[in-house]
Amino acid sequence: MFTCNLNPKARQTLCDQLYDALRGAIAAGRLRDGEKLPSKRELAAHLGVSTSTVEAAYGRLNEEGLCESRPRSGLYVTFRQEGSPELSGAAEIRWDFGTGAADAKHFPYATWAHLMRETLSARSADLLSAGDPRGSAGLRLALSGLLRRLRGIEAAPDTLVLGAGTEVLVSDILALIGRDRLFAVEDPGYPRVRRILLAGGARIAPVPLSGGAVDIRELYRSGAGAVYVTPSHQFPTGAEMDEARRAALLSWARETGGYILEDDYDSEFRFDGKNIPAMRGRDARVIYLNTFSRTLAPGLRMSFMALPEQLLPRFLEMHAACSVPAFEQETLERFITGGYLERHIARMRTLYRARLKALRQGAEACALGRLHPCDAGLYALLEAGGKAPATELVSLAAKEGVRLTRLADYAMMEEDGDDRRVLLGFAGMDEDEITAGLAALARAWGTVGQKQNRH
Amino acid sequence: MFTCNLNPKARQTLCDQLYDALRGAIAAGRLRDGEKLPSKRELAAHLGVSTSTVEAAYGRLNEEGLCESRPRSGLYVTFRQEGSPELSGAAEIRWDFGTGAADAKHFPYATWAHLMRETLSARSADLLSAGDPRGSAGLRLALSGLLRRLRGIEAAPDTLVLGAGTEVLVSDILALIGRDRLFAVEDPGYPRVRRILLAGGARIAPVPLSGGAVDIRELYRSGAGAVYVTPSHQFPTGAEMDEARRAALLSWARETGGYILEDDYDSEFRFDGKNIPAMRGRDARVIYLNTFSRTLAPGLRMSFMALPEQLLPRFLEMHAACSVPAFEQETLERFITGGYLERHIARMRTLYRARLKALRQGAEACALGRLHPCDAGLYALLEAGGKAPATELVSLAAKEGVRLTRLADYAMMEEDGDDRRVLLGFAGMDEDEITAGLAALARAWGTVGQKQNRH
Repeated sequence: MFTCNLNPKARQTLCDQLYDALRGAIAAGRLRDGEKLPSKRELAAHLGVSTSTVEAAYGRLNEEGLCESRPRSGLYVTFRQEGSPELSGAAEIRWDFGTGAADAKHFPYATWAHLMRETLSARSADLLSAGDPRGSAGLRLALSGLLRRLRGIEAAPDTLVLGAGTEVLVSDILALIGRDRLFAVEDPGYPRVRRILLAGGARIAPVPLSGGAVDIRELYRSGAGAVYVTPSHQFPTGAEMDEARRAALLSWARETGGYILEDDYDSEFRFDGKNIPAMRGRDARVIYLNTFSRTLAPGLRMSFMALPEQLLPRFLEMHAACSVPAFEQETLERFITGGYLERHIARMRTLYRARLKALRQGAEACALGRLHPCDAGLYALLEAGGKAPATELVSLAAKEGVRLTRLADYAMMEEDGDDRRVLLGFAGMDEDEITAGLAALARAWGTVGQKQNRH
Repeated sequence: MFTCNLNPKARQTLCDQLYDALRGAIAAGRLRDGEKLPSKRELAAHLGVSTSTVEAAYGRLNEEGLCESRPRSGLYVTFRQEGSPELSGAAEIRWDFGTGAADAKHFPYATWAHLMRETLSARSADLLSAGDPRGSAGLRLALSGLLRRLRGIEAAPDTLVLGAGTEVLVSDILALIGRDRLFAVEDPGYPRVRRILLAGGARIAPVPLSGGAVDIRELYRSGAGAVYVTPSHQFPTGAEMDEARRAALLSWARETGGYILEDDYDSEFRFDGKNIPAMRGRDARVIYLNTFSRTLAPGLRMSFMALPEQLLPRFLEMHAACSVPAFEQETLERFITGGYLERHIARMRTLYRARLKALRQGAEACALGRLHPCDAGLYALLEAGGKAPATELVSLAAKEGVRLTRLADYAMMEEDGDDRRVLLGFAGMDEDEITAGLAALARAWGTVGQKQNRH
């Protein structure tokens, strides 16, 4: 039964103490959603207080909506802590090939915590003041060095802006270049950015892909005033934009006065050693975006962008403070200048390369279909063998506890129903899990049987 | 001269080591903007390396724009760390009566650092995941308790949303209720919110004040679909909205389908003991906003809002993560549930009350004019004696090193030029500084002389 220490000599009344303890237990998930609370009489006896004390505490929880009284049954908790399991009829996901997964287990937590403790101990006065709206000068200097070393990008610290996630930065961009522009987006493309643009009041124009990149003729035809692209690793096809298409895109920007939003996400995770230069720096109409959600951890909420110089004065005028707390800024600065970030990225690249290899081998061994070439990023595109369309493949997989998505899930225009392309994210599982997951997929789709029958 | 330790046995080349050391010194402000670097020959001799090593390191700083070479003179740092003083012809500000000031000196840094260390040590997996877009359930529970205890507001944890500053929250609100609405704002009013609304693509309608609150008839006439108000303590007049006007405002919302954005900033700092209930909770068309910028510190970037239930599904659909890092969320939760926040607020209230008293007494003693009654917030409105208009009073003050703002600085409509009302923020100085600052003001305005002459 729920229990807590009540102190009759405390300044707080017994009812207040009990109420706080119950509230705390609910918040901490010790009393779980749907759990029945002990009856007033029981709890009163157990804690040695009057039933009216318990009644008053229960009444307050009830009023707040943390519990509800069910007739002839008692009081039940109606508050669910996130992360706690939800009762549901669907099969449990055992192998998650979702594209959003990343491996947070390998985040160098001890190092990060150590640097944050150092930051706390340094107790610089800047930690409490609003600071530069772009992020601290020291961090921007570190970021500019990082961009140069990792991506060959020359971006002056002055032009860099740190923000609490890509959402915040894209909102800023809308305010800077005008949300009355029509925003072209890749189709298929990254749904979250589409949503952010729409939520920000912009109109969007889906532009089909051609040769793995946004179709330039269609882009001209759309009349767009800005385009959001993922040239280093198109989401979700994984294709890389070739040099001719990059040049054409830059011409489009110059001729139409349009802006290019270059999202360089996952560019750190290339497995073939090549490092294609970003578009940023080649034209004043490119806004470069990147995030630490995948290189570090999503919970840290840190993304950054490099703004063309002409947009800086307006940015500085618009903002009074940076959306990332000073503690995180300084910790990240220490993390970069200490070389920890690059070491971590190198380690993860090796790890992810091995996972991709396991994915390739497993997909081959299980005869799942044709895996598109994939040299970068954390998911691969599979064209399934057999005749079943992707929709059916996904639901068959779900029955075996495998989660994956269709390529068509990221498209705005309806694809033809026979499309058999699915995405396999491999960042969230180790090699053994990947192999086991693909075997489960083979069972679900019946491919192993087919292959075995042929032998 | 600049110096650093170079290790010939290190894996890094001497040039890389020197370059990193120089870069670090510039970032940390040890080499300041405009400072001349030693000549190549000098530094090479000093550090015992070849001039070509220094030349290569200097060359890279130059390329990055961190230094510039001036013909026949040498290399100069061209990077300024924020916060470092700028050379300027204006008199130095010795007494800052700005309205934005808060006292970060009394922020319980040790407690906050201790709780953050605890958070780091707990190493919960939630720290790295994106979590609930509203903020963690535990923190929202703590916030709901805080609102109840401090402001008598009943807001279910489900309806609370934490964000990285008021800017982020107002952007969210625009996306939620539609930026095509016309947003009425108080005039005079809070300029930052006007800017955020405009940057977010909304149109705004300045509505004059009547009896210290937005004029309801003018509000109806404006055709606005939303109104931003500061009822507990109007910015910048400091007036409190009376019950009749609150009721009229709620009627307006119900009749027109408009939304009320209730900014409850500074409501924690009431000095008369009265605690006017917020409008939130009395109607489903009120969106309640508050911030920890002033109760804690601006660098922490934490604001929150209570959304009406009908807006929640759309909010959750729109957002994938909360803009405040999980570390700060958990630290704040510990800070609230441990009672530290309320203790801090109580301490600051006492402190600020004493400062307000010093301001009242000083303004009286120096015969500066009539100080409007002020029972809440961190600034007071002064109607200066004499005939000089506020514009002149502000520039006279600046010459004595006193910074203050005109009431008219916060107005969109031109006020008449004879207006003599200025604002005196008292949060950033202690009593002695306030007294000295007011004496300087009296010298600047010549009021002491006048008063003394009368004796």
